[in-house]
Amino acid sequence: MRGRRAARPRQDSTKHRLVQAALKTLTTEGFYGTTARAIARTGELNQALIFYHFGSVDQLLLAALDATSQGRLVRYREALATVTSLTELVEAMAALYEEDVRVGHVAAVQELIAGGSSVPGLRRQVVNRMEPWVAFAEEVTRRLLAGSVFEPLVPIHDLAYAAVALYFGVETVTHLQGDRSRAASLFDAGRRLAPLADAMRTNATWAGDA
Amino acid sequence: MRGRRAARPRQDSTKHRLVQAALKTLTTEGFYGTTARAIARTGELNQALIFYHFGSVDQLLLAALDATSQGRLVRYREALATVTSLTELVEAMAALYEEDVRVGHVAAVQELIAGGSSVPGLRRQVVNRMEPWVAFAEEVTRRLLAGSVFEPLVPIHDLAYAAVALYFGVETVTHLQGDRSRAASLFDAGRRLAPLADAMRTNATWAGDA
Repeated sequence: MRGRRAARPRQDSTKHRLVQAALKTLTTEGFYGTTARAIARTGELNQALIFYHFGSVDQLLLAALDATSQGRLVRYREALATVTSLTELVEAMAALYEEDVRVGHVAAVQELIAGGSSVPGLRRQVVNRMEPWVAFAEEVTRRLLAGSVFEPLVPIHDLAYAAVALYFGVETVTHLQGDRSRAASLFDAGRRLAPLADAMRTNATWAGDA
Repeated sequence: MRGRRAARPRQDSTKHRLVQAALKTLTTEGFYGTTARAIARTGELNQALIFYHFGSVDQLLLAALDATSQGRLVRYREALATVTSLTELVEAMAALYEEDVRVGHVAAVQELIAGGSSVPGLRRQVVNRMEPWVAFAEEVTRRLLAGSVFEPLVPIHDLAYAAVALYFGVETVTHLQGDRSRAASLFDAGRRLAPLADAMRTNATWAGDA
C-alpha cells in the first residue's frame, strides 16, 4: 500500500508523458497514425505502459482529449473573465483561437473527432466533451446580454450551443482545408461588426412591420 | 462505336445504381463499413463494376458526394428562390434540414467528411465540395440584405461562410451525438428571433456609446 502511494508521482508523470505524446502524435500523424507504437515512439516510452496505465489506446486518447480540453477551458475562462462587450469578446477569441492552433489543440481535437466518429465506442464519448464548452458559452452569453433589451428575448442555451457549433464548424472546415485564413477573415468581420452589435445591444429600438 | 453509344444508357444506369448503393451503404454502415463488397451487396451488383466505372471506391464515394450534394443544392435553390425575409428563411431551412436527414444526405455527408478526412487523397476533395454551398449562401444573404441598413456594413462573403460553417457544425454535432433534438431547438429559437431581426433589418436605428 505504502509502496503504491509512493509510486504515485512517477505514475502520474508517466501518465502525463503518455497524454502529451498522444496529443503530439495526433497532430503530427493524424488519427489513423496514432497507434500505440507511434505514441510510444513520440514519447520515448515503452508502449506496454499505454495498456498498463490506460487499458487501451482509445482510453488514452480520451484522457488526452480531456487534458487538452480542460486545459484550454481554464485558459478561455481566464481570458474571457472580464469581457463585457462583443468588441472585447471578438478580440479575446481571435487571440485564443490563434493559441488553440499554435499549441496543437485544434488539430488534435479535430483528428479525434473525425477519427473517433468512426469508432462506435469513441464517438459519443468524444462529442460529449463538448458539453462543458456549451455551459461555458452559456455563462459568457448570459453575462454579455445581462441588462440588454435582448436578454428576455434570446434563448441563451440555444445561442450558446449555436456559438459552440459555429466555432467547431469553422475549426473543422479550416482544418480540413488546411487553410486558416478564412478563420482570420471571420474574426476580422467580427471586429468590424461587434461595435455595431454592442451599440444595438444597449440602445436598440425597432419598429415592427405593422 | 455504335455499340458503345448504344450501351451508354445501361452504363449510366449502372453508375447511378452504384452511386445510390454507395450513399445507402454510408448511411447504414458508416465510412469504414463502406467497402467495395458492402456497396456491391447493397446495390446487388458485382463489385468489379465499381472499379470498371470509377477506378476505386474513393472515386465512387466522391461521385456519390457530388450526386447528393448537387441534388440537395438544386432543392435548396428551388425552396429558397422566393425567400425575402429571415422569418421565411428559417421556416424553409427547418423543412430542408428535415428533408436532409430523411433522405440520408446528412448522414452520408458526415460519414464522408469524418472518414474522408483521415484519407489524405480524399480530405480536400471532400471539403472543397462545400464551396458551391458558400456561393449559394452568399446569393441568399445578398438578397436578404438588399436595401437594408446592414447591406453596406456586413461582409457578405464572411457571413455566408459562417452560415455554412454553422450549419455544418450543427449537423456534425447532432449526427455524432445521435440527437437531432438540438437542431430542432435551434430552428425554434430561429423562429422566435427571425421576426425581430426582420424588423431590425428594415427599420433599425442605433446610437453609439458616445
